[in-house]
Amino acid sequence: MSVLVVGSVAYDTVHTASESRENALGGSATYFSIACRYFNEVSLVAVVGSDFKNDDRDLFNSQHIDVSGLESALGDTFRWGGEYELDSNRRKSLFTDLNVFADFSPNLLPNHQNTDYLFLANIDPILQLNVIKKMERRPKIIALDSMDFWINGSLDNLIETIQKVDILFLDETEIRLLSREYNLINAIKKIHSMGPHTIVAKKGEYGVTVFQNDDAFVVPAKILPKVTDPTGAGDAFAGGFMGALSAIEDISTTGLKHATLIGAVMGSFAVESFSVDRLKNLSQDEINSRAAEIIKLSNIKTPLQTKFRRF
Amino acid sequence: MSVLVVGSVAYDTVHTASESRENALGGSATYFSIACRYFNEVSLVAVVGSDFKNDDRDLFNSQHIDVSGLESALGDTFRWGGEYELDSNRRKSLFTDLNVFADFSPNLLPNHQNTDYLFLANIDPILQLNVIKKMERRPKIIALDSMDFWINGSLDNLIETIQKVDILFLDETEIRLLSREYNLINAIKKIHSMGPHTIVAKKGEYGVTVFQNDDAFVVPAKILPKVTDPTGAGDAFAGGFMGALSAIEDISTTGLKHATLIGAVMGSFAVESFSVDRLKNLSQDEINSRAAEIIKLSNIKTPLQTKFRRF
Repeated sequence: MSVLVVGSVAYDTVHTASESRENALGGSATYFSIACRYFNEVSLVAVVGSDFKNDDRDLFNSQHIDVSGLESALGDTFRWGGEYELDSNRRKSLFTDLNVFADFSPNLLPNHQNTDYLFLANIDPILQLNVIKKMERRPKIIALDSMDFWINGSLDNLIETIQKVDILFLDETEIRLLSREYNLINAIKKIHSMGPHTIVAKKGEYGVTVFQNDDAFVVPAKILPKVTDPTGAGDAFAGGFMGALSAIEDISTTGLKHATLIGAVMGSFAVESFSVDRLKNLSQDEINSRAAEIIKLSNIKTPLQTKFRRF
Repeated sequence: MSVLVVGSVAYDTVHTASESRENALGGSATYFSIACRYFNEVSLVAVVGSDFKNDDRDLFNSQHIDVSGLESALGDTFRWGGEYELDSNRRKSLFTDLNVFADFSPNLLPNHQNTDYLFLANIDPILQLNVIKKMERRPKIIALDSMDFWINGSLDNLIETIQKVDILFLDETEIRLLSREYNLINAIKKIHSMGPHTIVAKKGEYGVTVFQNDDAFVVPAKILPKVTDPTGAGDAFAGGFMGALSAIEDISTTGLKHATLIGAVMGSFAVESFSVDRLKNLSQDEINSRAAEIIKLSNIKTPLQTKFRRF
C-alpha cells in the first residue's frame, strides 16, 4: 500500500528573524515525500525546470523516493521567497515565480493510477480533481491540502474536489474561511457535510486538532528550543501522517491518532533546519523518542478522583 | 487545608460580538472563589463600595464562601468595561474605574493568616508582597497571577514578589514580556530561575501548558459550541486549579495534572455565560463529565508501534 503525492518541487528563499537561505530545495511534494518515506514507499508527481540540480535529483534517489513522475520542462523551477517574523506563525510572501509550475498538468503513469493512499498537496483544485479522475480505481484514502488563495479565488472548484476527499488538512483560519462559520464546532460540521469524514485542523505551535465525525482529539506540538525555518512543516506533517496511516492501514480513531502523532513528529523535525536538512537524516530512534516526548506532553490522565467539598 | 484569595470584586460591563451585559458581578476574587468552592473551603479578601448589592453578597453566602475579609468602603465598587472581538482572544478595555479599589490595602484577619494555599490574583505586586509578609507562616503553596500592566510598569516589584512564589499563572505574551525572551523554552528557564517551580502558561482556546522544572504537559481547552463571555476564564481556571490542588494535597506532577484539568473544566464553564451565571450552578456530574471529555480529547496514546520502511 504505497503513497502517491501530487504537488510542487521548488527552490525556496527564506529569511527568518536571524538567518537566511537562498534557493534551497523545497516544495510541498519534497517535504511530504521525504517525511513519508520513513514509513512507506512513496511516489512523487511534480514538475521541475531545466535548472533543477542533479544533487537534488540525487537526494530523492538516495531517499528511495520514486521520481518517475517528476517531469522536466523547459524553463525554470518554481521559486518562492518568504520572510518570517519572530513569531514564526506570521509570514510574508516576498515573491512567487511559478515558472514551469504555471503550466503544470499532472500526468499519472500507469503504475501510479492504482495507488491506495493519495495526497493532493496545495495546488489548483481543478488539477487536484483531475488527478482523482485519472485514478484507475478510487483510492482507499484521498487526502487534500489547500489554502486561502484557492478558498477565496476558486471556491466552487475546491468544494467540488473536497466532496471526493476523505481527509482534509487546513489551518484554523482556512477552516473558518471555507465554512463561513467563526465557531469551530459549527465550521467543522459544515465541512463534514461537504464530504471529508476527517478534518485535520492545524494550529502551528499549538499542534493539531483532528475531527473525525463527532469525535475529536488534540495532538500538541513539541515545544522546541529553536525554530530555524517553519517552511514545509505542514507538508512534513502530512507526509508523516499519510506514511504512518498507510503503513498501519487502520483508519479507526486509533490509527488516526497514531498517524497524527507521527505527523507532529515529522513537522517538528522539519522546522529545526532550513530546507530538508534535518528531515532527510533521521534515525528510527530519533523518531520514536520524539513520539514518546509528545505522548508524554499530552498524557494528563491520572488515577486521582475529583474531591468535591460542597456545604 | 483551605484556600485564601486576595483580589478584586467588581461590576463588569461586557460587550461581545452578539450580546451585552451591564454591571454584572465580576472580579478576579469572585470567579476564583466560586470555582474553588466546589473543591475546598475558600476565604476571599477584597473590597467593595457602598453600592455593592445585597443580592451579590447573598450569592457569596449561598456559595458558602467566607467573606469575612470582604471590606466595605465608602464610594463605588470597582467597575470594568470591555469589548470582545469575534475572535474572543482579542479584547479591548473600554474603561477601568478603580473607585474603592484605588486605595485597597488588603488586611488579613487572624484566621486567614495561617492558610496553607494562597492565591494572589492580578493586583499591584506591592500589595501581593504585603499579603505574603502578613502571613503568620509560609503557606504550603503561594500562587500568583499578573499582567502586562505590572510587567511594564512595576517590573522590579513584580520580580521581588515572584521570588517568593511557587506557581505563576501568566499567558504566553506575558511570559515573553517578563522574561525578555521570545523562545518559550528559554523564557520558562529564566522565570524558573526567578523563583517559581511551576509556571502555568495560559493559551486561551488552545488550553494551557504547565512547566514544572524540566517537565511539561499540555491540557487542551474543551472546544465549545458557543463562547458567551470570556471574562473571568483565567480566574475560574485558577480557582478550580487551587481548589483541586488543595483538596488533593499532592504537588507532584500527578497532582498538578489533576489540578490543571479541573482548572480547564472550570474555565470552560465560566465562558458559557455572562458573569458567574453558569459557574455558580454546576453539579458534580457536570464537572466530572467535562473532565472526562478533556481527558478524552487529550488521550493520544495507542498500542500501535511505528512501522518503519527504510530501503
